[in-house]
Amino acid sequence: MTCEAASELGIPTVVLAEGSPGDTVTPAAEVMSGVPGSRPDMQALAGRCDVVTFDHEQVDLTVLSELVAEGHVVHPGVTTLEMAVDKSVMRARLAGAGIDVPAFALVPPTGAVAAVAAFADDHGWPVVVKATRGGYDGKGVWPVDGPDAVARVCERAAADGVTLLVEEMVPIEMELAAIVARRPGGEAAAWPAVETAQIDGVCREVLSPGRLAVEIGDAAGKLAHRVAEVAGSVGVLAVEMFWTGNRLLVNEVAARPHNSGHWTIEGAVTSQFEGHLRAVLDLPLGSTGATAPQVASVNVFGAADGSDPAAGLARALAVEGAHVHLYGKEPRPGRKLGHVTVCGDQAGDVRGRAWAAARALGTPVPASLEIPESP
Amino acid sequence: MTCEAASELGIPTVVLAEGSPGDTVTPAAEVMSGVPGSRPDMQALAGRCDVVTFDHEQVDLTVLSELVAEGHVVHPGVTTLEMAVDKSVMRARLAGAGIDVPAFALVPPTGAVAAVAAFADDHGWPVVVKATRGGYDGKGVWPVDGPDAVARVCERAAADGVTLLVEEMVPIEMELAAIVARRPGGEAAAWPAVETAQIDGVCREVLSPGRLAVEIGDAAGKLAHRVAEVAGSVGVLAVEMFWTGNRLLVNEVAARPHNSGHWTIEGAVTSQFEGHLRAVLDLPLGSTGATAPQVASVNVFGAADGSDPAAGLARALAVEGAHVHLYGKEPRPGRKLGHVTVCGDQAGDVRGRAWAAARALGTPVPASLEIPESP
Repeated sequence: MTCEAASELGIPTVVLAEGSPGDTVTPAAEVMSGVPGSRPDMQALAGRCDVVTFDHEQVDLTVLSELVAEGHVVHPGVTTLEMAVDKSVMRARLAGAGIDVPAFALVPPTGAVAAVAAFADDHGWPVVVKATRGGYDGKGVWPVDGPDAVARVCERAAADGVTLLVEEMVPIEMELAAIVARRPGGEAAAWPAVETAQIDGVCREVLSPGRLAVEIGDAAGKLAHRVAEVAGSVGVLAVEMFWTGNRLLVNEVAARPHNSGHWTIEGAVTSQFEGHLRAVLDLPLGSTGATAPQVASVNVFGAADGSDPAAGLARALAVEGAHVHLYGKEPRPGRKLGHVTVCGDQAGDVRGRAWAAARALGTPVPASLEIPESP
Repeated sequence: MTCEAASELGIPTVVLAEGSPGDTVTPAAEVMSGVPGSRPDMQALAGRCDVVTFDHEQVDLTVLSELVAEGHVVHPGVTTLEMAVDKSVMRARLAGAGIDVPAFALVPPTGAVAAVAAFADDHGWPVVVKATRGGYDGKGVWPVDGPDAVARVCERAAADGVTLLVEEMVPIEMELAAIVARRPGGEAAAWPAVETAQIDGVCREVLSPGRLAVEIGDAAGKLAHRVAEVAGSVGVLAVEMFWTGNRLLVNEVAARPHNSGHWTIEGAVTSQFEGHLRAVLDLPLGSTGATAPQVASVNVFGAADGSDPAAGLARALAVEGAHVHLYGKEPRPGRKLGHVTVCGDQAGDVRGRAWAAARALGTPVPASLEIPESP
């Protein structure tokens, strides 16, 4: 989607991607085969580009530091990526800057169970044990209710060489997210904060502003600005937050265009993808205002039978105002394959229509979400 | 831009293009080198695609007829393209269906001057002589005020082997355009009609709805529907019209996404590019409604000094709400290199901002256009 935005602006892109070229529809001027952890691959990429940027966190910070030392421009920079790559770095830096995050502690490799139990003595069971690196979409996150469960997680982590941290279990009233674009000089702009529905750690829908009260949305925007400043980010930074009813805490930080911002393609004057390009190229950021009072974006997941969502395209496009985005990925049950956005005036209406289209594309509807009937 | 829309929907595209691959930024899954007039090139393309479609009229109708006979799906079809390719066919078919067009006559190769003079006796001087094929952006159109001027045009045309027609000079109060998407079964949807500013036959700006009165806009939409029906078009069809103050006449027809519809990318719920894809793939057409009360789209042309519009990108993106589209073409003075769209509430405001951005990109401002100051 970043390449689609680049194409509109006439900015040529070179994409470094592994795997078979047929696996994704990449509207880039050029696709180079390679992996981001490889020094020669990254050097070949950087040699073709004015600016190197990312759409995921599977990067090697040593390789990136070397690129920067060689004079290449890499945005976001290594300091920002350290936070996005490692939850313990992120938590420590934000807490150090006075930003509210869940109480946390690193779990030492020896005496892990005792350390978690001691943490739980202070903060109460259950607690949440997390891998400091590599987790996403609910992977690498384990809620545990006592020492036995902790022991099982720690044993497995030790075997896999995974470093852990432990966090208080925050009582969540609502999950929300805000995205900030930030230029090298520090100029920044935030899109309106959104309500997100996460089920089993996976984002299923994003509502702008959904049920989000104006004052919480504003506070979330300010908090996201502050996080971007602390992170020294260049490009877009997505900040996922918890609202507990009286506290707004930072949960996750992603230093790239993020699923919680896909709604901005049609729902905001400037999309997060164009905003990211503008920011990393040090161009004026543009308006982040919404184009409609209510926007709903629902993720498309692979159906249980592995069928291709494209088979339901005609039915999805029959839904009034449904903007369908399919990523051209090979369909697999439960794999994120696209999203649908609907803009309008009524929260229930846009949500109902977005789900109707997502369902037509084969997306299973989670039992725990109450979806309004589509007209 | 059609490929950008296809990328969003996850529809892979194969583009047949001549010239150097670096000349355009093509966000297609694949680019094949070739020309549309070549039978083997078109057969190779058709062999890779479910549907063959077009973004220009430089096609060979014999080759296309053969593809269809071989069982390939070609949209729009040969009958529609005949109208788009040859003005005399277009005029004759529309007039035959009772649609108002300027009075016209074919100019015979022998006795050409006398024939034009006889036509002018009936309709008054000046008249307009046009090449029946190959004209665009004011090329192939000659207003003539008497037999001497006619003789010069006819001599040149005979030398070049160009067939001519002659038309009455219509008193134009406003130029307008409407685009219709039409599926194979005949289901059709028109975008709101727009006011266009043509200078020396070249479209400089498109305003939706601009100064267009509601009743003229509605009449233009109905007329465009009727033209699409007569043309039997599949895909989008752009109909350019003259408003004389009391008559609405069809001037030109293009059977492809058209410059007068670029505003729909941000200014309508479904863009003309996505609409074209939906129509040729026989998918539901989607809403053609506007997303804002006023939309202005201004074309970006190469500056006299041949400078690259991208050099002005930062200044253009500093204009509030400016959606910049650059086509990645090699800059040449006067060449159409992109466009800028601005959506908003006030006609003068959106027009002023779109021109401010186009100017920043190097577009010369025509002396005959009064441009409001941008804020």
